[in-house]
Amino acid sequence: MRTLIVGGVAGGMSAATRLRRLDESAEIVVFERGQYVSFANCGLPYYVGGVIKNRSDLLLQTPESLASRFRLDVRINREVTSIDRRERTVTVRDTLTGDVSTETYDRLILAAGASARAAPSGLTTSTLRTIDDVDHIESVLSARPEGATAVVIGAGFIGLEAVENLVHRGVHVTLVELSGQPLTPLDPEMAAPLLATLQEHGVDVRLGTTVLGASAGNLVLALSDGTTVDADLVIDASGVHPDTSLAAQASLRIGASGGIWVDETQRTSDPFIYAVGDGVQKTDAVTGEPLLVTMAGLANRHGRAAADSIAGQPEPAAPALGTSIVGLFGLTVALTGWSEKRLVAAGRAHRIAHTHPASHAGYYPGAETMSMKLLIDSETDAILGAQIVGGSGVDKRIDVIATARAGGLTASALTRLELAYAPQFASAKDPVNQLGYVADNLRAATSRNIQWHELAGALAAGAALVDVRNVGEFDAGSIPGAINVPLDDLRHRLADLPPGSLIVHCQVGQRGHTAARILAQHGFDVRNLDGGYRTWLAGDS
Amino acid sequence: MRTLIVGGVAGGMSAATRLRRLDESAEIVVFERGQYVSFANCGLPYYVGGVIKNRSDLLLQTPESLASRFRLDVRINREVTSIDRRERTVTVRDTLTGDVSTETYDRLILAAGASARAAPSGLTTSTLRTIDDVDHIESVLSARPEGATAVVIGAGFIGLEAVENLVHRGVHVTLVELSGQPLTPLDPEMAAPLLATLQEHGVDVRLGTTVLGASAGNLVLALSDGTTVDADLVIDASGVHPDTSLAAQASLRIGASGGIWVDETQRTSDPFIYAVGDGVQKTDAVTGEPLLVTMAGLANRHGRAAADSIAGQPEPAAPALGTSIVGLFGLTVALTGWSEKRLVAAGRAHRIAHTHPASHAGYYPGAETMSMKLLIDSETDAILGAQIVGGSGVDKRIDVIATARAGGLTASALTRLELAYAPQFASAKDPVNQLGYVADNLRAATSRNIQWHELAGALAAGAALVDVRNVGEFDAGSIPGAINVPLDDLRHRLADLPPGSLIVHCQVGQRGHTAARILAQHGFDVRNLDGGYRTWLAGDS
Ligand SMILES: Cc1cc2nc3c(=O)[nH]c(=O)nc-3n(C[C@H](O)[C@H](O)[C@H](O)COP(=O)(O)OP(=O)(O)OC[C@H]3O[C@@H](n4cnc5c(N)ncnc54)[C@H](O)[C@@H]3O)c2cc1C
Ligand SMILES: Cc1cc2nc3c(=O)[nH]c(=O)nc-3n(C[C@H](O)[C@H](O)[C@H](O)COP(=O)(O)OP(=O)(O)OC[C@H]3O[C@@H](n4cnc5c(N)ncnc54)[C@H](O)[C@@H]3O)c2cc1C
Ligand SMILES: CC(C)(COP(=O)(O)OP(=O)(O)OC[C@H]1O[C@@H](n2cnc3c(N)ncnc32)[C@H](O)[C@@H]1OP(=O)(O)O)[C@@H](O)C(=O)NCCC(=O)NCCS
Ligand SMILES: CC(C)(COP(=O)(O)OP(=O)(O)OC[C@H]1O[C@@H](n2cnc3c(N)ncnc32)[C@H](O)[C@@H]1OP(=O)(O)O)[C@@H](O)C(=O)NCCC(=O)NCCS
Repeated sequence: MRTLIVGGVAGGMSAATRLRRLDESAEIVVFERGQYVSFANCGLPYYVGGVIKNRSDLLLQTPESLASRFRLDVRINREVTSIDRRERTVTVRDTLTGDVSTETYDRLILAAGASARAAPSGLTTSTLRTIDDVDHIESVLSARPEGATAVVIGAGFIGLEAVENLVHRGVHVTLVELSGQPLTPLDPEMAAPLLATLQEHGVDVRLGTTVLGASAGNLVLALSDGTTVDADLVIDASGVHPDTSLAAQASLRIGASGGIWVDETQRTSDPFIYAVGDGVQKTDAVTGEPLLVTMAGLANRHGRAAADSIAGQPEPAAPALGTSIVGLFGLTVALTGWSEKRLVAAGRAHRIAHTHPASHAGYYPGAETMSMKLLIDSETDAILGAQIVGGSGVDKRIDVIATARAGGLTASALTRLELAYAPQFASAKDPVNQLGYVADNLRAATSRNIQWHELAGALAAGAALVDVRNVGEFDAGSIPGAINVPLDDLRHRLADLPPGSLIVHCQVGQRGHTAARILAQHGFDVRNLDGGYRTWLAGDS
Repeated sequence: MRTLIVGGVAGGMSAATRLRRLDESAEIVVFERGQYVSFANCGLPYYVGGVIKNRSDLLLQTPESLASRFRLDVRINREVTSIDRRERTVTVRDTLTGDVSTETYDRLILAAGASARAAPSGLTTSTLRTIDDVDHIESVLSARPEGATAVVIGAGFIGLEAVENLVHRGVHVTLVELSGQPLTPLDPEMAAPLLATLQEHGVDVRLGTTVLGASAGNLVLALSDGTTVDADLVIDASGVHPDTSLAAQASLRIGASGGIWVDETQRTSDPFIYAVGDGVQKTDAVTGEPLLVTMAGLANRHGRAAADSIAGQPEPAAPALGTSIVGLFGLTVALTGWSEKRLVAAGRAHRIAHTHPASHAGYYPGAETMSMKLLIDSETDAILGAQIVGGSGVDKRIDVIATARAGGLTASALTRLELAYAPQFASAKDPVNQLGYVADNLRAATSRNIQWHELAGALAAGAALVDVRNVGEFDAGSIPGAINVPLDDLRHRLADLPPGSLIVHCQVGQRGHTAARILAQHGFDVRNLDGGYRTWLAGDS
């Protein structure tokens, strides 16, 4: 059996190595149009920033190492240019010599990844996707050891990593982002700390802005906000789309999302052709709808799964949540599943819980505050998504929530997770348990909450706002219109409260919850401002 | 409705605060025989070590703060000495004056915790369980600012924390442990790094040893190994048992494990009496059998659950896994569920996977190696337990595995978890996914493995051992009897291999897996030494 693989990095090479382990006698040929295979795409930004010091650390395998260990026939500088499905052949072009040859296959795996969007016209941009890209960026930066300027287009995961690493290198960076916030998969109040962090680190952030054009060699860029900026380097991280060129040429089915359609065993509409990685369409774990997720974990897993299928032991793929994470100057941002804005756009009924717990027991030094948001299905109490921003411990909590979701646990069931506790690692009620308690109170209607963006409307409709923080906290900054009745005085000051609807709030939501319980039992119509002053402030910023 | 609560710390006070939130008009009285409530038991060792600097940080709440916020009637220095179930009263003794009074209840919650075992006779020991204990330890240590000596009895979680913190204070510590390893819930090969770490930090570890007696004032202790050791201080951390004294006096049902029997809603055999925390029996998540787990997370959760029950909204408790974690001089050790030794003792068929992955992508600086062990049900592929030892990222992985288990995910399903990956946090195949792959190969019989403790028997029965590491690794230390055929040479050297059963191994198991796949397909009867040389070495030590 002869299997050809197009693309020699995350998805393609994972398929190749697994296929070899399953089938010692298979003939396996990997075509890679670039000069490197099995490189650490995800490490590229950190090499630019000097965090990863040795370029060779990025090259996890070479054609030679793959040949000696896995008996793989890895051919670099070879681009597959077309597929003949009837003949089961592909055309291969040598990118150095231009020579063209034909190769036959019994099975074909497409793992060509994603393509960057076309650069804005008139602009010479770099992408940050390959070893060649970082070599180019390195040459520009070495030529300007001091005072270099860069424009990064796009404040997504890779754009943010590029910014951080350029700043590490002493480059003055302008970050241009079309939408109104960095990291658009986040809801706006969760993205607020990102913007603040970027600005604290001297990044010139231009939201709602695009690049219109540039002078020759990019020295001066014109932005849609009417300004111009200097740029020795322009990195386009504005997004990618699935590379479906070969699949389209071969008339394979393309999914509604624009990625190559595959079944649960990674098989395309042609039974002899499989596809994996950034080029393929995934299935959304929440709705079962078509979805694009361009993540290394899925590419690796689906690569292995394609090999399993070809070797005759298919394992159905799990749907995708899009769990992802990014570090930015010590801030960690992670998310899984759906956001509030996506739920709102889809008209799906949901509940929301915001909390701001400490990463570990407050009495043990070094705890850092994180902000968590949980999206919950109103009908089934299912976990629909989560977002977490903070420092240490963010990665742990997003993984626990993604795992709970994968195991079908409801939001309220998070209360019952038995997580590892010692004071330097967590709290006796872990932040995930605590988020579960908040969710459980919503489910049981023990509490009712109101979101930061609903507050103005509720106040306009006549509700009164009671800030139950202490006087010092209130004086240091409060929500316009709030009256201050500290929680510990509340029971004695019920008579001071206005009639009608009340909204209570504290700093993070926790004292507000106790206040709301007191007031509800005294007959008040009361809601707790979810996430308290902190979430409101983030949303308002 | 008048609810009395016995014990004012983790379980008792969690019940009290939740009950207040659910029922503003309830009468709630908490009796605590000590002078402090709501203190951070789990922080006590770190206060001894000077990590937690302020004694007041240990006191999370006071009777005053609990009165003003939760309208709780908290009575310290009050010991409940008996229960009259027929009259629904308890007898309370003032521990300062000796005065005795009677209090009536509609509902009673027992949250008296655990008791330390009786000290070996002739010995003046301290426990490390209360604020008074740390005040006493502090007074001994301040009186001997230099050269103080201590004996810690018991190398369990609290004993290890005590040792670490005494060493931080400059105390010379002897650790006396009856069993043959520290932290007996671990399997021996997983406990090996703990012993090494203790010894590296100058701790005199005496395994298989007990304290026989002491000279007056503990100055010299006689040990069962025939030696004597100096000790200004003896901390007994040899274990606790559920405090069932009140329950027994009132003839409440005591479970087979020795803890107070409760139903899933924390109700004892008396419908008006609830019990929570270290004093109660839990249900084992693996077998449904009676179990004792003395952990703060469960105490807090069950305290809240008792309040829910009393307020008429019972939530069935989840069974217990015993997830736990301890830090020791930078080493982190975590576990959940069953160990191999427990499974063997119970005669339960199981599979085992050991791995030694990096905490995050190897190409990103700072990754630390961890050792993981997964216990799997042979029939159902269910996750039965896990143990992890290492540095950063251990806490995350144990929580993910505990959550997967709670969600009913199988070991093979760990491969499909979509965990957050960026190179500073994880690997594209997270260690948990990777452990799933190993488990999945066992399930599918793609691989067969053999455990470190089975090796000697297999070799004696005639199997040959092939070390597939490179020559340098082999020369630096190898398993007696192994022949060295590096993986990358294996295909050319099949003729050099002895006939009959083969066992292959590498450093951690991963190259051994590829080697085993090659050999199996060439017709060899082959097994991979699980966890490789590293696990074998740990087990052998
Ligand atoms: C800078 C950067 C940072 C990232 N960080 C993260 C991260 O932190 N976490 C995360 O989960 N993901 C991250 N990713 C995404 C991750 O790298 C991708 O999801 C993953 O590599 C996709 O795998 P793939 O096999 O589909 O494509 P790729 O790994 O991109 O491999 C596709 C290969 O196919 C080759 N190819 C394309 N067409 C042809 C052809 N016709 N003939 C021959 N060869 C061809 C290409 O040259 C390319 O080498 C990052 C990506 C980048 C660029
Ligand atoms: C040093 C130390 C470190 C620990 N570290 C951890 C850790 O890292 N992680 C973890 O999960 N767990 C840890 N624990 C365990 C955790 O603290 C317990 O599981 C938890 O406190 C049990 O809660 P409880 O309410 O059952 O008992 P406790 O919190 O012990 O409270 C019981 C209270 O009841 C009082 N009492 C008893 N009898 C009477 C009576 N008759 N009348 C009035 N009052 C009475 C006692 O004085 C005591 O204050 C640690 C424990 C200790 C001692
Ligand atoms: C590295 C690469 C070539 C894949 O190689 P691979 O050998 O399939 O993958 P890994 O090195 O992760 O090893 C996984 C295998 O080792 C096995 N394994 C891991 N630890 C083991 C252990 N301790 N004992 C036994 N087996 C073990 C796994 O079961 C798996 O084998 P299987 O697939 O047969 O089940 C491919 O992923 C690649 O090119 N990656 C670089 C590009 C990339 O991923 N970029 C994006 C991220 S930066
Ligand atoms: C602290 C103690 C008094 C319990 O107080 P508590 O108020 O019940 O518990 P917490 O402070 O964790 O707060 C949890 C409550 O806040 C709510 N909450 C937390 N964050 C919230 C937020 N952001 N928004 C709304 N509600 C929030 C939770 O839902 C929960 O309320 P509920 O029980 O009504 O659902 C008790 O656990 C104790 O005495 N602990 C010290 C001893 C101890 O635990 N020792 C062992 C570990 S060292």
